[in-house]
Amino acid sequence: MSVINGIDFEEIQVDVLKGQHFSPEYIPMRQIPAIVDGHLKLFESHAILIHLSSSFPGVASHWYPVDPSKRAKIHSILDWHHSYLRRGAAGLVSNSILLPLNGIPSNPNIVIQAEEILLRSLSKLENVWLKDERFMGGSTQPSIADLSLACQVMQLELLSEEDYHRILSPYKKVKKWIEDVRSTTKPYFDEIHEYLFESQNGIRELMATQSGKKKKKIHKQTCLQLLAPKIHEIETR
Amino acid sequence: MSVINGIDFEEIQVDVLKGQHFSPEYIPMRQIPAIVDGHLKLFESHAILIHLSSSFPGVASHWYPVDPSKRAKIHSILDWHHSYLRRGAAGLVSNSILLPLNGIPSNPNIVIQAEEILLRSLSKLENVWLKDERFMGGSTQPSIADLSLACQVMQLELLSEEDYHRILSPYKKVKKWIEDVRSTTKPYFDEIHEYLFESQNGIRELMATQSGKKKKKIHKQTCLQLLAPKIHEIETR
Repeated sequence: MSVINGIDFEEIQVDVLKGQHFSPEYIPMRQIPAIVDGHLKLFESHAILIHLSSSFPGVASHWYPVDPSKRAKIHSILDWHHSYLRRGAAGLVSNSILLPLNGIPSNPNIVIQAEEILLRSLSKLENVWLKDERFMGGSTQPSIADLSLACQVMQLELLSEEDYHRILSPYKKVKKWIEDVRSTTKPYFDEIHEYLFESQNGIRELMATQSGKKKKKIHKQTCLQLLAPKIHEIETR
Repeated sequence: MSVINGIDFEEIQVDVLKGQHFSPEYIPMRQIPAIVDGHLKLFESHAILIHLSSSFPGVASHWYPVDPSKRAKIHSILDWHHSYLRRGAAGLVSNSILLPLNGIPSNPNIVIQAEEILLRSLSKLENVWLKDERFMGGSTQPSIADLSLACQVMQLELLSEEDYHRILSPYKKVKKWIEDVRSTTKPYFDEIHEYLFESQNGIRELMATQSGKKKKKIHKQTCLQLLAPKIHEIETR
């Protein structure tokens, strides 16, 4: 058991490669992340973040402000995330990295489209959400929208170093914001991204091999192990 | 000005074909639907529904229950909607109807994938959300999740009659639920879908023409006019 933000919880690691999310506990939705809080079984990361920050009195108000306008802004950013930043970032990483590493040729049109959506989303982050604010909730401390969107941008670390810098470099405020989310959530931000950085080198090496820079044989098993997301179920209370 | 659920509002129609959502009022997000409530400018339909039902005391509690577990369930259904039901339904209607009507050939793989996502989503609606409940919020009256998801399913009315019945027929509870949302929100549900049904015949006729059943020349302008979504900005207070 651990306690963070006044929430007692037990963290449960789920190995999706072993199909552990198909076990009876995950019926009927079979989605992770998921939490159990008393009688409530809840899935969808945004719904979980809202529940944890509104139902546990130990959670500081900057995570999910009570003020109606600030709360409405958090909701609109979280909803926008689904159709824009997530669609662009997850679409680009899946179609240019994860599928090719698993032997499925990527469709160049889909990759181009995902990158366009990503660039437009980063531009909105830079020029709208973070234009005059350190964080998205309009506070000097991060909100649940900062947490969710920053973790999405972090997934771009799986791109090649060249692509990563080409895409992210123009967005100075986005880069500073990621650093601010990281420094204000020490040591958790680094802890949850440990596995991402562990995978980064292996994935970049495999991608370089596939693009013909090296002649090393690719083992699908190695690649799957690298990609296994360390996604967790948190059992609370 | 109108008053519904104790909310005074002015409804503003936005013609997206004339690019009215690019006018200065819609900067910086250029998204509709959007509302203005005092100093708050808000976009994203789910965020708007949550704001209206939590900030106006005249709105009955079944729309957005105060109970933490019921509210958490509403949030998880709304989040799930983005990645599943909306992705399947909007993906199928766009790729099998709207793009071809605008002269862009549809990609059969994308259409098949969208239909698969839609069928899986309808199955979750039937066998999980509506298994033992008349509405999704666990009340005898609809919630904002019922409103949003029912309107998404209604978009399938733009498919051919054959496809519509092939896809929807197995889902008896979904069909009954749509009728229940419609009857409990009279006359608004029919009013907002008036334009959809007005477009339905024209679109079905054009699609039949395109598939070679008729030889009539297709005018892109006609088709664009048929597809023009009547989406509104609601100015409140």
